[in-house]
Amino acid sequence: MTDYRPDPALLAKAETLTEALPYLQRYAGSTFVVKYGGHAMGDPELARDFAEDVVLLKAVGINPVVVHGGGPQIGAMLKASGVESKFVDGLRVTDEATMKVAEMVLSGQINKEIVAWIARAGGRAVGISGKDGRLVTATKMKHPTHDLGLVGEIDHVDTTVLDTISRAGMIPVVAPIGIGKDGESYNINADTMAGFLAIATGAERLFLLTDVAGVLDKQKALLTDLTPSQINLLQTDGTISGGMIPKLQTCIDAVEGGVDAAVILDGRVPHAMLIEIFTKQGAGTLVRLG
Amino acid sequence: MTDYRPDPALLAKAETLTEALPYLQRYAGSTFVVKYGGHAMGDPELARDFAEDVVLLKAVGINPVVVHGGGPQIGAMLKASGVESKFVDGLRVTDEATMKVAEMVLSGQINKEIVAWIARAGGRAVGISGKDGRLVTATKMKHPTHDLGLVGEIDHVDTTVLDTISRAGMIPVVAPIGIGKDGESYNINADTMAGFLAIATGAERLFLLTDVAGVLDKQKALLTDLTPSQINLLQTDGTISGGMIPKLQTCIDAVEGGVDAAVILDGRVPHAMLIEIFTKQGAGTLVRLG
Amino acid sequence: MTDYRPDPALLAKAETLTEALPYLQRYAGSTFVVKYGGHAMGDPELARDFAEDVVLLKAVGINPVVVHGGGPQIGAMLKASGVESKFVDGLRVTDEATMKVAEMVLSGQINKEIVAWIARAGGRAVGISGKDGRLVTATKMKHPTHDLGLVGEIDHVDTTVLDTISRAGMIPVVAPIGIGKDGESYNINADTMAGFLAIATGAERLFLLTDVAGVLDKQKALLTDLTPSQINLLQTDGTISGGMIPKLQTCIDAVEGGVDAAVILDGRVPHAMLIEIFTKQGAGTLVRLG
Amino acid sequence: MTDYRPDPALLAKAETLTEALPYLQRYAGSTFVVKYGGHAMGDPELARDFAEDVVLLKAVGINPVVVHGGGPQIGAMLKASGVESKFVDGLRVTDEATMKVAEMVLSGQINKEIVAWIARAGGRAVGISGKDGRLVTATKMKHPTHDLGLVGEIDHVDTTVLDTISRAGMIPVVAPIGIGKDGESYNINADTMAGFLAIATGAERLFLLTDVAGVLDKQKALLTDLTPSQINLLQTDGTISGGMIPKLQTCIDAVEGGVDAAVILDGRVPHAMLIEIFTKQGAGTLVRLG
Amino acid sequence: MTDYRPDPALLAKAETLTEALPYLQRYAGSTFVVKYGGHAMGDPELARDFAEDVVLLKAVGINPVVVHGGGPQIGAMLKASGVESKFVDGLRVTDEATMKVAEMVLSGQINKEIVAWIARAGGRAVGISGKDGRLVTATKMKHPTHDLGLVGEIDHVDTTVLDTISRAGMIPVVAPIGIGKDGESYNINADTMAGFLAIATGAERLFLLTDVAGVLDKQKALLTDLTPSQINLLQTDGTISGGMIPKLQTCIDAVEGGVDAAVILDGRVPHAMLIEIFTKQGAGTLVRLG
Amino acid sequence: MTDYRPDPALLAKAETLTEALPYLQRYAGSTFVVKYGGHAMGDPELARDFAEDVVLLKAVGINPVVVHGGGPQIGAMLKASGVESKFVDGLRVTDEATMKVAEMVLSGQINKEIVAWIARAGGRAVGISGKDGRLVTATKMKHPTHDLGLVGEIDHVDTTVLDTISRAGMIPVVAPIGIGKDGESYNINADTMAGFLAIATGAERLFLLTDVAGVLDKQKALLTDLTPSQINLLQTDGTISGGMIPKLQTCIDAVEGGVDAAVILDGRVPHAMLIEIFTKQGAGTLVRLG
Repeated sequence: MTDYRPDPALLAKAETLTEALPYLQRYAGSTFVVKYGGHAMGDPELARDFAEDVVLLKAVGINPVVVHGGGPQIGAMLKASGVESKFVDGLRVTDEATMKVAEMVLSGQINKEIVAWIARAGGRAVGISGKDGRLVTATKMKHPTHDLGLVGEIDHVDTTVLDTISRAGMIPVVAPIGIGKDGESYNINADTMAGFLAIATGAERLFLLTDVAGVLDKQKALLTDLTPSQINLLQTDGTISGGMIPKLQTCIDAVEGGVDAAVILDGRVPHAMLIEIFTKQGAGTLVRLG
Repeated sequence: MTDYRPDPALLAKAETLTEALPYLQRYAGSTFVVKYGGHAMGDPELARDFAEDVVLLKAVGINPVVVHGGGPQIGAMLKASGVESKFVDGLRVTDEATMKVAEMVLSGQINKEIVAWIARAGGRAVGISGKDGRLVTATKMKHPTHDLGLVGEIDHVDTTVLDTISRAGMIPVVAPIGIGKDGESYNINADTMAGFLAIATGAERLFLLTDVAGVLDKQKALLTDLTPSQINLLQTDGTISGGMIPKLQTCIDAVEGGVDAAVILDGRVPHAMLIEIFTKQGAGTLVRLG
Repeated sequence: MTDYRPDPALLAKAETLTEALPYLQRYAGSTFVVKYGGHAMGDPELARDFAEDVVLLKAVGINPVVVHGGGPQIGAMLKASGVESKFVDGLRVTDEATMKVAEMVLSGQINKEIVAWIARAGGRAVGISGKDGRLVTATKMKHPTHDLGLVGEIDHVDTTVLDTISRAGMIPVVAPIGIGKDGESYNINADTMAGFLAIATGAERLFLLTDVAGVLDKQKALLTDLTPSQINLLQTDGTISGGMIPKLQTCIDAVEGGVDAAVILDGRVPHAMLIEIFTKQGAGTLVRLG
Repeated sequence: MTDYRPDPALLAKAETLTEALPYLQRYAGSTFVVKYGGHAMGDPELARDFAEDVVLLKAVGINPVVVHGGGPQIGAMLKASGVESKFVDGLRVTDEATMKVAEMVLSGQINKEIVAWIARAGGRAVGISGKDGRLVTATKMKHPTHDLGLVGEIDHVDTTVLDTISRAGMIPVVAPIGIGKDGESYNINADTMAGFLAIATGAERLFLLTDVAGVLDKQKALLTDLTPSQINLLQTDGTISGGMIPKLQTCIDAVEGGVDAAVILDGRVPHAMLIEIFTKQGAGTLVRLG
Repeated sequence: MTDYRPDPALLAKAETLTEALPYLQRYAGSTFVVKYGGHAMGDPELARDFAEDVVLLKAVGINPVVVHGGGPQIGAMLKASGVESKFVDGLRVTDEATMKVAEMVLSGQINKEIVAWIARAGGRAVGISGKDGRLVTATKMKHPTHDLGLVGEIDHVDTTVLDTISRAGMIPVVAPIGIGKDGESYNINADTMAGFLAIATGAERLFLLTDVAGVLDKQKALLTDLTPSQINLLQTDGTISGGMIPKLQTCIDAVEGGVDAAVILDGRVPHAMLIEIFTKQGAGTLVRLG
Repeated sequence: MTDYRPDPALLAKAETLTEALPYLQRYAGSTFVVKYGGHAMGDPELARDFAEDVVLLKAVGINPVVVHGGGPQIGAMLKASGVESKFVDGLRVTDEATMKVAEMVLSGQINKEIVAWIARAGGRAVGISGKDGRLVTATKMKHPTHDLGLVGEIDHVDTTVLDTISRAGMIPVVAPIGIGKDGESYNINADTMAGFLAIATGAERLFLLTDVAGVLDKQKALLTDLTPSQINLLQTDGTISGGMIPKLQTCIDAVEGGVDAAVILDGRVPHAMLIEIFTKQGAGTLVRLG
């Protein structure tokens, strides 16, 4: 055997695959809910990479559920239609005309684009919203001072439609819209919806793709692991602020609701999800009960 | 028993239910594909009635599959956006911008409205398009003189997603869009799509809801039953013409493809489908192999 | 659409069907136990109507279980054979010869006639008694002063044979006979047996068909809804008496044993069961926990 | 081991059990149809033995189906009722009154007695007739010179009800009555019915219990194995005659219809069936394709 | 019937079979774990008889699991290889070389011989050890004064592989070897292993085949039934001693762990197991909770 | 996004995983039969790598079946026992003593070592031989001039035991021994056995691990793809010779028997199987129908 010299490049590939083995075994049959948004959604290369990751998860026996956002696209469409956008506490005031545009953009454009990306990557996706199969029942969100219109709060989740699609070997892609008891549509925050679906499906992981590297400490170094109590401290001392606060709250709600871990992941990194799931290094900030 | 006088109104109800019995037995477990469009889609009362009919079919063990159109709504949206509509041989020339609008209107507006109507009637619908689960694979339609853009012809139907939804006790609602081999969207004629889905699912019935009473003879009397050869004669002698010709061709294709019968039904009649299915009178024009 | 005038008769039919929708949804998959007897059993037209009703229930996904009586027919056969009938507290004293005749009439005549009526209505019935599959195990009923012979009390119900028949798409029809631990036959009251079967199968409804309109108040007006405590009051003040008392006790036992509601129904009304189940009016007297 | 002396009686038992092993393996999961009649039915000890045999078959994984006769008992009941019995070519002319008595005796008396014997032996039987589950559809038998009344010929067998009962771990016991297309009862020869059920269930064995030792040659020696062509020869040369001829024809029809073997068995021998099935000696006359 | 004289030998066979009936019914679907060893393993006739018994159990619906020993054969092989055997408290001190020989003899010779005997008897066996499917996880047995090498204690039993084999209609035959957490082999006492497997599979019976008649009292009479407390008394007064003590402890552990009864059986008696299981006499000493 | 710089090492890992995606999708649910032998079996590191590869295949939904050899180990054991090895045409003349040693080494040593390696890699293996579950039935191989003793030819393969193990999430490891009709053991060539198992299980791939790089042309360059007719040419012109000839014949038999492709793979390369299966480069020589 002295004369045998394996190709180092091939060997490296084999090592990557065997490095993935324990993760393959651990996650087989489990559900991963992924909130997809931001740059990863706008950039065709990142969109293709993301779709490949999702299809790979499915191929190795994990059940991915994709929830997407679409705020900027809705804003653009409203602007093109001459409708003014109004926000209260970061929530878009949603009158009927706005809701109609939002639903067309979310369910009729973005949702089906993701379905198409997954098809290109060799998978089979089914694009739905929370209205389909009465997946997400919602009620009007109450606000102390303003009428937010058709902004909704989640009342109840019935995962039958997700389970049905996943068991048939397909990937559910969900637009963040809920259905009221009279059949009306409600605009739901996509992170919140992903968190609720993760709890309701008994997911092993919740991923929130963002446009930042993760949670950073005051020296701008990545915090790779956090517990709910550590997050509270960081919030108290002002290390985390702005949009990261509700995202981390969604993570806390998820892990307290039974999800094993929630991860804030940098959607700008190609294949960030694969690296996080199948290598020892991981990526982003992982939140888990202490 | 001389003194017993049953209430005639209740008796009539009981008779209606027992009249339905043989049809309930005959159709249990079978699939009915329904092309929903025209006035029935625009009028809220008719929409509610239609949703009730579909939910009733599901409740008695039939698997309805709804395919909807949306030409007028697409036209209105394009007009509002200042895009000009161009038609060749009755087919909308569909450039990329037009397709994007069409997909938003079909998948993001009309499709989800039908889902909501079915929810109000107590059913559970899942709104998809032919792209979801790669239900309908399409290629560009060739035309001898014009480039029709993204008008598509159906290449292949894979009913897995429909079967999955139906078996889970839900009702698939399908927008008439196909997916190309590179993930691109194609605009498909809704009648044609309903016919293909009827054949591929092994449907017992194909219903095409229209805005006319059915096929009329030269004396304007309704022709209740037709065979393909009778249709050919009627076409030759000019009794039928215009938009009814492709509709009847879809019916012929369906019954020749194994569908037991195809029915041109007056969508303006409240509950026309129930009357056609569960009473002796029937409604509209039924096409069956001679 | 101004010129479209739907046929009011057809419209009424459609309305009857849609009126049935919520009941179809509510009762799908549940079990209804029906005690069939009295005039409804003697009159061929009512027998045909009853069979149609039972087959219709089956066709829409309800599992009917029919329990029948046969007192008058047993009496007639005994009289023809010159055997004298003796009663104690309304119970027929049943020596071995009487039991043999009773079993022949119940299992060999009435039971199979009902099976035949159901077959004529397009259904598939399987006629059994409580001996088959050891459905109803019984012991000798003790009486303070008399030996009632083979009159039995129910000891144990094993519904395997009913579940087996129902799941195979067939309708069990049960003669009111139990089996003792040495294989001997016992004469069981049919109402009582229906009540026990309703509890043991987890039935949603128990129907007792009688030859009266239901429970009437002192002004002879029908009492449409009663609770066990109201029944006790009515019994105390003498409003109800005679054979209605044990029937209502069976209803109370059933609802206290987990049956959602028990109904005393007028078997002389054609299709009384359909009206009770599928229309808003209802029929007869419904007993439910308060 | 020189001092070990096994008890010869126990050893003999062990040998009997191991002798049964190849038969247990061969017959596991197969169906045996048994026509039960004659003395074996009249004598309580033989009835108990027969029931034990049937329950033992079920316990070791064979699916027994019992078909019973009842001619003598019907005759006795008719005589007691003062009705005259008339026969044409060995077939009882069956008017409506006779049929009613026959059905009561067969379905209401004999059938349920067998059910009770099987219960005593620890098994669970379900007593039905050919009317139940529309098991045996019949038409009026045509006769060149006489009107036989409700004597029936078998038109169609639907074994769903038998399969359902067998799969649920129970033993079907079938009275020889068929159902006409208008729900009327037909009197069917029990041997014939057993033969049809054996073919329709794909039975491995058909047993016809009789009151003779089997088919005897001219020297009165038992013929243990016969082929259809040998039977024809024996009939031609007059060795077999009388009631044995239709019995052997039933055997021939059965084996030509796919039953592996049909056996004419002496019902007077206690446990004749066990000896035939589980020992090397066998019993009676076995008919098999040559 | 006066002239009918059944053959007494056949009658005796039939009686043996019917005597087995209640046991067949009681044990259907249950698991029997059998420790096979001693003379029964060395003698070809007894080995054939044993295999027939095991195959018969399987044929009548019982799931036998065979655990075998092999001490003498291991000793012989070690001697032939010139390796000295050392024992501490009756346990073979097992260094790596000894373990290697033991595993070859147990898994490579004895185990496959039993598989072959069962094949000859018409059954299908699958020979495994506790390493296969990680059936038996073990750790090094601690001893106060000696290092016993690879003698193991059972840590955990995972019966998946046994259930899988049994459900597929096959008979697991298990060599008494466990697997450590680093994949190393451990030598496990076969009686102990049989007891653990009986508890883990929820077995109805544990049989320990030995070379003695069972437990004898001081007058050398067989004690047919014992409770744990009676065993303690017998041990205290010196009635039982030597190798019988750990065997009875295994029995006590088994019945306290949920096994219905454990039987010390004389493996020198041909078909001792059949006699014990299927006749009223029984054989050996049965241990059951008092 | 200008400031984002993904780590190239992580990116490479992600690319390796996505490179594997099409192969994961193509092979999901299929069976791969692997003949394991040579250096890969002797070297602990290669054995560990091999076990990891097999467990990884299982983890991603492929069903691996391992067949192992053991010639050198048998030779060593025979030599240690002073038994002389005799060969005819490369086949070991196998008398009973030799067979006993061979079976001990194959089933009791090598087989269980592989089971242990797979356990260490986190998998669950079940080590059997062709005798278990009567997987491989064999007859004595005939030779024109010599008596080869217990060298066997494969008569019949019954894959039930393999399917059972695979479906239960475990990995079958098979020693190359067959069972004769009298239960005797036969020595089977391991390559041949792997080929038969590949055909009988409908395998997608057959891998033969060897100690060479694959099939080389006259310039010692690796031939990566061959058809049966190309192999015939290479054999005719002397390019291939010696032990490679029967190996390639096994490959030809396999692909002609329905296996999609057979691969001669260099067992000295760490993770050669992973590279062959999940990368574009491949490894070794692949034989496929032209």
